[in-house]
Parts: sequence; structure tokens; C-alpha cells
Amino acid sequence: MPALRSWFTIPRGSHFSLANIPFGIVSTATSNSPRVAVAIGDHALDLEAFAANNGFSALSAIQPHQAVFSEPSLNSFAALGRPMHAVVRKYIQSVFAEDTPYPDVLKNNAALQKQALFPLKDVQKHLPFKIGDYTDFFVGMNHAYNCGVMFRGAANALNPNYKYLPVGYHGRASSIVPSGTPIRRPHGQFLPNPAADEKVPVYAHIKKLDYELELGAFVCKPNKMGEPVPIGQAEDNLFGLVMLNDWSARDVQSWEYVPLGPFNAKNFGSSISTWVVLMDALEPFKVKGIENDKEVLPYLKEKDDKTVYDIQLKVDLKTNSGSTTTVANSNGRHLLWSFPQCLAHHTSTGCNLQTGDLLGSGTISGTAAGEYGCLLEGTEGGKKPFKVGDEERTFLQDGDEVTFTGVCGTDEEALVGFGQVTGRIEPALNLGY
Amino acid sequence: MPALRSWFTIPRGSHFSLANIPFGIVSTATSNSPRVAVAIGDHALDLEAFAANNGFSALSAIQPHQAVFSEPSLNSFAALGRPMHAVVRKYIQSVFAEDTPYPDVLKNNAALQKQALFPLKDVQKHLPFKIGDYTDFFVGMNHAYNCGVMFRGAANALNPNYKYLPVGYHGRASSIVPSGTPIRRPHGQFLPNPAADEKVPVYAHIKKLDYELELGAFVCKPNKMGEPVPIGQAEDNLFGLVMLNDWSARDVQSWEYVPLGPFNAKNFGSSISTWVVLMDALEPFKVKGIENDKEVLPYLKEKDDKTVYDIQLKVDLKTNSGSTTTVANSNGRHLLWSFPQCLAHHTSTGCNLQTGDLLGSGTISGTAAGEYGCLLEGTEGGKKPFKVGDEERTFLQDGDEVTFTGVCGTDEEALVGFGQVTGRIEPALNLGY
Ligand SMILES: [Ca+2]
Ligand SMILES: [Ca+2]
Ligand SMILES: [Mg+2]
Ligand SMILES: [Mg+2]
Ligand code: NI
Repeated sequence: MPALRSWFTIPRGSHFSLANIPFGIVSTATSNSPRVAVAIGDHALDLEAFAANNGFSALSAIQPHQAVFSEPSLNSFAALGRPMHAVVRKYIQSVFAEDTPYPDVLKNNAALQKQALFPLKDVQKHLPFKIGDYTDFFVGMNHAYNCGVMFRGAANALNPNYKYLPVGYHGRASSIVPSGTPIRRPHGQFLPNPAADEKVPVYAHIKKLDYELELGAFVCKPNKMGEPVPIGQAEDNLFGLVMLNDWSARDVQSWEYVPLGPFNAKNFGSSISTWVVLMDALEPFKVKGIENDKEVLPYLKEKDDKTVYDIQLKVDLKTNSGSTTTVANSNGRHLLWSFPQCLAHHTSTGCNLQTGDLLGSGTISGTAAGEYGCLLEGTEGGKKPFKVGDEERTFLQDGDEVTFTGVCGTDEEALVGFGQVTGRIEPALNLGY
Repeated sequence: MPALRSWFTIPRGSHFSLANIPFGIVSTATSNSPRVAVAIGDHALDLEAFAANNGFSALSAIQPHQAVFSEPSLNSFAALGRPMHAVVRKYIQSVFAEDTPYPDVLKNNAALQKQALFPLKDVQKHLPFKIGDYTDFFVGMNHAYNCGVMFRGAANALNPNYKYLPVGYHGRASSIVPSGTPIRRPHGQFLPNPAADEKVPVYAHIKKLDYELELGAFVCKPNKMGEPVPIGQAEDNLFGLVMLNDWSARDVQSWEYVPLGPFNAKNFGSSISTWVVLMDALEPFKVKGIENDKEVLPYLKEKDDKTVYDIQLKVDLKTNSGSTTTVANSNGRHLLWSFPQCLAHHTSTGCNLQTGDLLGSGTISGTAAGEYGCLLEGTEGGKKPFKVGDEERTFLQDGDEVTFTGVCGTDEEALVGFGQVTGRIEPALNLGY
């Protein structure tokens, strides 16, 4: 398929080509009230201003609902459902198309261009959704296997349930922050010497601060409590994807997590990219995930065999001294279970998901060196340091900035990308302990 | 302290004596919009109507904030802080006191009595808070020990971290429902034969449906992300307590919970009592919890040694045929860690709690037979059935109704009670699997 051409200047290599049209929440110097926008090239199109100035004059379906674009989250727009997301995206693509059938809407409307198009560097991006509940899965099988080998040896690396259900746990919604938010090194309770026979913990600032390279999926369509979502309908309950950095305190995690799972090790902050890429935009990049050699139960069995996405993922680490090193390359295909399977399983007991809920994939690692989605794997639990510029790292140091980049496609004029999610580590507070 | 006497008829033995004044959210036949009320005897005092008719004329502190009583949740009232909760409670006590200094407010105001006082049986009670995040702890040590013995033997019953930190995990907020909401028996993935060598699960309606007798604490004061709450301030961040039934699917739980903790086994529904008892009302019933024989770290060390509450807890099971059996008596004192300790630990990594967040205690069991807070313990994992009327039970059957009752004190004219939290099991849906 040839790239869609636009009358509007979209830089080559932009993640936000006409093929994408991701949604987000922005504010600007002209108005500090957060509202809905789409990213296009290196600009944001303010949909509140666009709607208020007859931008949607040729799309009657959205007209009764235009107030959703003035809201400070995508929840109301998302709740309109996937068919509506699809027509709005297609309409915006057609408005920007070189041969747009609606030239008066924006192409020939310099006043509205000035009012509604803002350079991305000048807009503030906010959390795209009001997130009720956040669930983190663990379906990056290579990561699960590598961690399992470290903790239990190769023979028992994956637990017996791993290939029968998408393993997941409830996470902390309140501490999910948008890309760019600094992350303070937490204090926590951990064993200063885990190998010692006597297990006596301390409370101190943590030493083993890690990132986790993940994807996140936002729910658009709620299901009623008590009513599981059939696997065939699950994808339609999803709005779109973001990149997710599930910051992790490994020293806290290893001390606390038996028997009820990770808690404080994960709840001090999780960062997400701010532009949500719609399920429809990702459709052309569907690929097979990791092969499951067990018999999948009917409530999790998908008709299509391409259910995850070929998203090229990259982790960069920039140190305080300014040198940047790419520490990992991975790909969204390295998942055993798809997001629709995660959603179907999550609701399999009747658990009600709501618009704006976030599902995390779990850490996404490849199989080779240089493809690890977290430092725990890459350094074998801190035993093997690696080089960043002329410094060494096992876990993150204060001042380190971690940036994930994610993009689909290779045609520089038709990329469907996520932009970046970034966060810089601030020194721990002095708590006087 | 002699009981406060009222000009208003408060039945002997009422949980909602003048010493209590719990807060909740109600609607009535006269107005179906949910709003704030307090329970007093067998009536609810509608605080929206009370405020609108100069009920608070002698309490200037609340006057700028009276709009909070028209909201459909307690979040805004709770956010005003504990000193405000205290003066509002004291003022309402004084308005109802036999020798009230404000007789014209309500005692001599038949019109307002008619407008604002509703028999409890005629009001609909709603979820008291909009709950952002829910965390369930595991600090009922007798329960943790009994379960540990079952799964790992007596020598390893408690994990090494158990006495150093309040073990907890993130729960599911969306499926928390008010007392009286029916609970549908869920389907779930589990092993039909856990003892078999080959671990091949099924997806079917679950067999081992259980309740968990817990207390829940609502957060009133938020803390900023990155800033732990010092233990000395933690109690002031709490609004009050409810009873919590953390319904559990034991067959799902045992199959899914390693390594990331309980997930679908717990997310299909949790029931809470609808009247929130303020921290101030509970103050006279403070007692020592379970003695901790380990050295508690400074960030968790409390000045006072009385930090939990003498709350008499009871579990009743009513079968479909109508016979009711008391299956357990327990007490709120059987906790190793207090709610302020749970809150301090939760925020110890800088995790931000928000107004309306709910903390569960974990199952509260005593040490003797007849004091088990869940059926898993009482029946030793289903091996020892017990009698209810002329039927037998191991786990819950369809049509069973579980009711928790909780009350502080013995003076029948000054009880501080929680009322009840109840839920009846509906048959599973036919999903066609
Ligand atoms: Ca994770
Ligand atoms: Ca529980
Ligand atoms: Mg996190
Ligand atoms: Mg529950
Ligand atoms: Ni069935």
C-alpha cells in the first residue's frame, strides 16, 4: 500500500504519519485546560478547537458527541466505541489527504490551522486516560523464562500455569504518570544481604532500580460485573496501545513478593507514552506471537493466528554526563498471549473492566543478548555490568534517563509509531532514616 | 462513660447509637440521587436535606463546604480532613442529645424531621466512596499461619518477611459492591484434579467459593507521589472502617497464584458494609494487636501500643432452605499490623494514596475452632465438612447468603457498630462451555 500523501508537511520518519493518527490529551500556552488532540507529523491537532470551528462539518456521526473533545481525558471519546474511533480517524486522514474532499475544512482555512495546529514541542502532554484499575500481565515469555531460570533453574523456569493462562496481577493505578515525569528513587524495605541465613531487612533507599519494557492497552468498552467477555469480542473492547515503563525496585521485589506477588516494588511509579495508537492503526502490523505448545482452552482460543504486533522497541539509557547508549532492542511480537486473550482471561471470572482501565503486557524481551527488556535480565541480576559511554551500570543510577521508542513499519512516510516514553531518576529523598 | 441520651428514639442494641454516627451514601423514594447521610438508631439523617434547611446553622466551620453533602460519594467530605469529620460528628451528637443546645435545629423542628429522617429500611444504601485503588493486606496472622500450615507445613507456615512488613497486594477496585449485592458464582480456570501429575486445567464454574472476613479502611488524606507518610501521621490519613467480604475462588487461586499472587480468584466481587465508622468513633475501643516478636523497623514503629480495635465479628450462613447458622466468631484485635502501619508501609516507596482508596486487613481469624474467618481454614481446605441446619457444607453453595456483623462495646445504649455486610450466591451463568 503506498503511503497516504498530505498537503500538510509531515517530516520523513515521523512516527505520526497519516497512517497513524494517535490520540492524546494536551494543553497549550493559549489554553491550559487539557483536551483531546491527535498527533500528525510534528504537530498536534487540537480537536476541541477543530470541532468548535466546524472541523467535523462533513462527519455527521460525531456531531452529537463533540463535547467529548473538550474533556481532560480520552475516556468519553473511547466509550463511543471502536466503530466511532474508526470513522473519526478515517475522517481526519481524509481532511489531511493531498486530494482531500474537504479542502475548506482545514487545507484552505489558514485561520483554523493557526488556531488548532500546535508544534508538538510547544504542547504539554497529559495522561491520556483517567485510569480506574491497572493490571500488569507477564506474557512476555522470554522474560518470564529468563527470570525463571535465575530464580528456579532452567527445568522449572516457567510455572505449570504459564502456558494455560495469561499470568497477571493487579497493579497500582494512582502512580501511572505521563512520559517525562521524573521518577524519584524510592526507599523501601529489603534485605541488605539476601544470601545471609538471618533474614533481617532494612528500610533505605533502594539499590536495584530497574525499568521494564512493556506495552499497555487501554479498555474502551466496559463489561458488566458477572459477565465474561467472549474471546471473539475482546479486541473490540480495546481502544489502543501505548508503551509502558513499569519501574521496578528489584531489592524490594525479591524480599516482599512471596506469597502474594510484587507490591511496593512496583507501585512507586509507572510511565506511559502519551499518544495512544488506535487498534485500527495497528491492524496492518499484526503478526503471530510466540507459539504455544499447550492446548489453549476454548475461552482463550482466537480464530486468527496473527494477534500481536510487529512493533520495533528500543531502550536508550542517557547518563548524567550526557552519553546515550542503546541498551536493548526488542519487539512487540515476543508475547505468548495477545491483549484480547488477556482481556478475555481477566473477565473470565466476571471481573468488570471499565473504560480507561489499563492492561500491561509484562516485560518484552527477545531471545538474544541485547534484546532484554529489563536490567535484571541483561545483567543477570546485577552480576554482569555493562558499558554506557565510559561508565558501567548494573542497575539505574541517579540522573539516568531511560527512553523507550516504539514504531511499526519501515516506509519512512507511513510509520505508525508511539513516539517515546522517558523518565529520569531523581535522587532519593532524605527521610532521616 | 455513661451513654449519651437522645430525645430521638434509638432502639436498645442499635449499632448506630449516639456514640457512633457513621457516614454513608443513600437515596430514597423521595429522591433517587445518592447523597450523604449518617445512621442514627434505625434511621438515616439525610445531610443534604439537613444542610439545606439550616441544620448546620450552629456549626460555622462546615458552612462553606456544605455542597459535599450533595455528592454521590463521601470523597469530598472525607477530603476535608479528620478535624472536620470530628466537629461534624460532635455537632450531630449534640443536635440529637437529650439536652441539645440547639433544640430548634431538629428536636423542635417537625418539618425537618419529616424531610431529613428516613427509616433505614426505606433507604437504598450505595457504595460509600468512589474507590480509585484497592489494596488487600494479609495481616490477620492467625489466618496467615493456618493457611501456611496447610500449604507449607508448620515449620514454614509464615514467610520470612511476614513479621517485618505488612504483606499486601493490589486488588481490584471496580468490582467492590455494597452490602446486599448478589454475587454470581464465577467461572474460572482451575485444575479439576490438583493431585494429578499432569497439570491440565479446565474452564468451568468454580467449586470452591469462599468468603473472607475482613475489615477495610478508607483513606481520607492523599499523599503526594514520592513522599512516604510518616507512621506518626498515618492514622490521620484514614477516614474510617467498614467490614469487607473478599469473596474468593479457592480452586482458581491455588492454580493461578504462583508467582504473582491472587488475581482472578479475587477480582469477581468484594462486598463492603455501607456505613463507614469514623476513626474517632472507634477510638475508645483501641486494643493491642497480636504481639510481634521481631524488631519492627522505625518507619513502622508506633508510639502507642493500642493500635487495633476490639470489634466483635460474626459470620452467619443462611442456606436456601432458610436455616441460619453462625459459622464463626472473630475479633478485630487479631491483627499483627494496624491500618496506620499498613498505610505507612504502602507509601514507604512513595506510592501515592488518594482519597477514597480502600485498604483491606486480610482475613481475620482467631486461634480456636469456630473462630476462622474463611471456609478454607474452617474446613481444612474442604476436607472437613460442617453442619448448617440439616445440610452439610465445605464451600458455599448457590443460594447461600453470607452475613458478617461487627460491633464494638457491650453497653446496649452505646454500641458502635458496623451493621452488616451480606451477599447471596447466585448460580453461575450458562456460558455454553
Ligand atoms: Ca511488569
Ligand atoms: Ca483477602
Ligand atoms: Mg509500576
Ligand atoms: Mg475480592
Ligand atoms: Ni458452567
